[in-house]
Amino acid sequence: MSSLPVDALKPFGSISAAWKAPSNIALIKYWGKRPNQIPQNPSLSFSLSACYTATTLSLIYSEVRKPIVVNGDENHPFMPKLTNFFNDIEINFPFLAKASISVITENSFPHSVGIASSASSFASLALCLCEIEQRLLGNEGFGSDFLQKASSVARIGSGSASRSVYGGYQVWGYLAELPNSTNDYAIPVTPSIDPKFLGLRDAVLVVSTKPKSLSSSNGHALMVDHPYAEARYAEAKLSLNALLKALKKGDLSAFINLCEQEALTLHGLIMSSRTTPMLLAPESLLMITKIREFRQQTGLPVGFTIDAGPNIHLLYLESHAPEVESFANAELKALCENGYVIFDKCGTGPERI
Amino acid sequence: MSSLPVDALKPFGSISAAWKAPSNIALIKYWGKRPNQIPQNPSLSFSLSACYTATTLSLIYSEVRKPIVVNGDENHPFMPKLTNFFNDIEINFPFLAKASISVITENSFPHSVGIASSASSFASLALCLCEIEQRLLGNEGFGSDFLQKASSVARIGSGSASRSVYGGYQVWGYLAELPNSTNDYAIPVTPSIDPKFLGLRDAVLVVSTKPKSLSSSNGHALMVDHPYAEARYAEAKLSLNALLKALKKGDLSAFINLCEQEALTLHGLIMSSRTTPMLLAPESLLMITKIREFRQQTGLPVGFTIDAGPNIHLLYLESHAPEVESFANAELKALCENGYVIFDKCGTGPERI
Repeated sequence: MSSLPVDALKPFGSISAAWKAPSNIALIKYWGKRPNQIPQNPSLSFSLSACYTATTLSLIYSEVRKPIVVNGDENHPFMPKLTNFFNDIEINFPFLAKASISVITENSFPHSVGIASSASSFASLALCLCEIEQRLLGNEGFGSDFLQKASSVARIGSGSASRSVYGGYQVWGYLAELPNSTNDYAIPVTPSIDPKFLGLRDAVLVVSTKPKSLSSSNGHALMVDHPYAEARYAEAKLSLNALLKALKKGDLSAFINLCEQEALTLHGLIMSSRTTPMLLAPESLLMITKIREFRQQTGLPVGFTIDAGPNIHLLYLESHAPEVESFANAELKALCENGYVIFDKCGTGPERI
Repeated sequence: MSSLPVDALKPFGSISAAWKAPSNIALIKYWGKRPNQIPQNPSLSFSLSACYTATTLSLIYSEVRKPIVVNGDENHPFMPKLTNFFNDIEINFPFLAKASISVITENSFPHSVGIASSASSFASLALCLCEIEQRLLGNEGFGSDFLQKASSVARIGSGSASRSVYGGYQVWGYLAELPNSTNDYAIPVTPSIDPKFLGLRDAVLVVSTKPKSLSSSNGHALMVDHPYAEARYAEAKLSLNALLKALKKGDLSAFINLCEQEALTLHGLIMSSRTTPMLLAPESLLMITKIREFRQQTGLPVGFTIDAGPNIHLLYLESHAPEVESFANAELKALCENGYVIFDKCGTGPERI
């Protein structure tokens, strides 16, 4: 519970904050959840750099709660999720009950490329809200307590958003072997890993810009009666421990194996669920084959991850960018919708703007 | 143990038998085994008609065991499997110790189309051997005891061969809910199912004629440390019960759902195994999408199954053959290697030739 009273905004009249927060790509996937946005297994991701959301949150003191406005629009497509979010968190931010809320939000990347804009959107919004709370409380600084709170608030909007309040690599969800890990918020794991992984590149190979055929909610729902659910959750913990070990040791080969196994496990779980949706596209399979052939031929440590959609994230180190990006442009780009590739990389995290 | 003495062939000098046996397509998959060709879960298949193996087995009494000859060749590619097979079963057929063995075997379908020739090969060979034993014993007739013995002998050569000694539909492996089911041999389940399923058609859409990238042995081995193995074996039993129910009730919609779920579960298990092989080809995914679209547009009960390879088996009833085969020729044939489609159907089982 916040120590702020419901009238906390009154002396300020209005207040606003602006943050940009990155999207992130999970390497150990969040797939299956319990009520209150509690994950069935811990997940590990890295934050992107070029793909982010910039959000400005403005609150004006108001005796009567008014409809939320997003980008000047009371009927913005983001409204239903946002309304739920503000309803869910009001208990922690009582001053929202006496505020008219305006959100201005902009993604640096098209909505349709299959990168989760909800992660960067809710992370940036949560950072704004937590900054406003800080200022209302007269506190200063954006240290780890601040980020933890922002992460836990972001989580309410979208589970994966909890990870987007940090740069580098982060883990969300309790893992017995990882001190301080919790289901409530994400924690950074960057300090413990081999620095070369901070130079990780991600070429997002956009196979399709069609809207997702499986929403996140429907995806999580597939796990509810999935016959492999319990085995999956146990496996994810083992894989996360193994991936942390590979990241610490700088073991690129293990890193790639684990990333690909997780990606194909996710799609294996999707394919073997009750409604057997098929999210991979023919081009996705072609890319997988080509990436593996390229790796075998060149010996370069290049691999991939895949989210719950057809797009392939090509993973490689900064030091191999020239060869790998030549390959991507020559062999993979033509398989992308309109040749669409986003060359992004592991980023440094949110910024106050 | 056979009651025949080791010298049983001596009075006959030589003896031969010839059978043809069909290939079969599993709808509930055999994927994972224990020692001595014991399956981790029961499987259900139907026998094909046009795809079969014709085998002649000739034994000549011989004081000294001579090398086996296959199609006149002591170095035939089938030799290693065949030598193992005869070594394994000699304890049950002691007269083999004093026989020179000649096998003449021919498949009605190319080795490379991804249809398991080992099933029809070992089934036809086992039928020959059991017939010879019958004649040496002075017994007659090829009733259910004979077929059970042939099935258990065929199983030693190849698990799926145990199912190929019957026409129609068959189950191999113990299932608590299915009387007489056993891991030792397959049993026919045809009498209990809706007769319309005996008119099931299978258009084998040959995506690739390349040799299998994953052998059966390596496939089963993937399950040994698969994190979902136990859940899979439990699920397979539930699915088999559900499929038997659908077959009995004539429930085509449930039949199709279960077939597709099993097929995609198999590939999900393969993709999520330690070495994450990808056996589906881009064309396989295109076909799956097209088949599902065709089903949705026409309302016709058409579905698919897939073995551990890229080829798609299009399943439909005899009564819908005109529409479905027009569709297959118009939309799917072009995706096959050299337009190769085998139009086959549920068959009546082995024949003595």
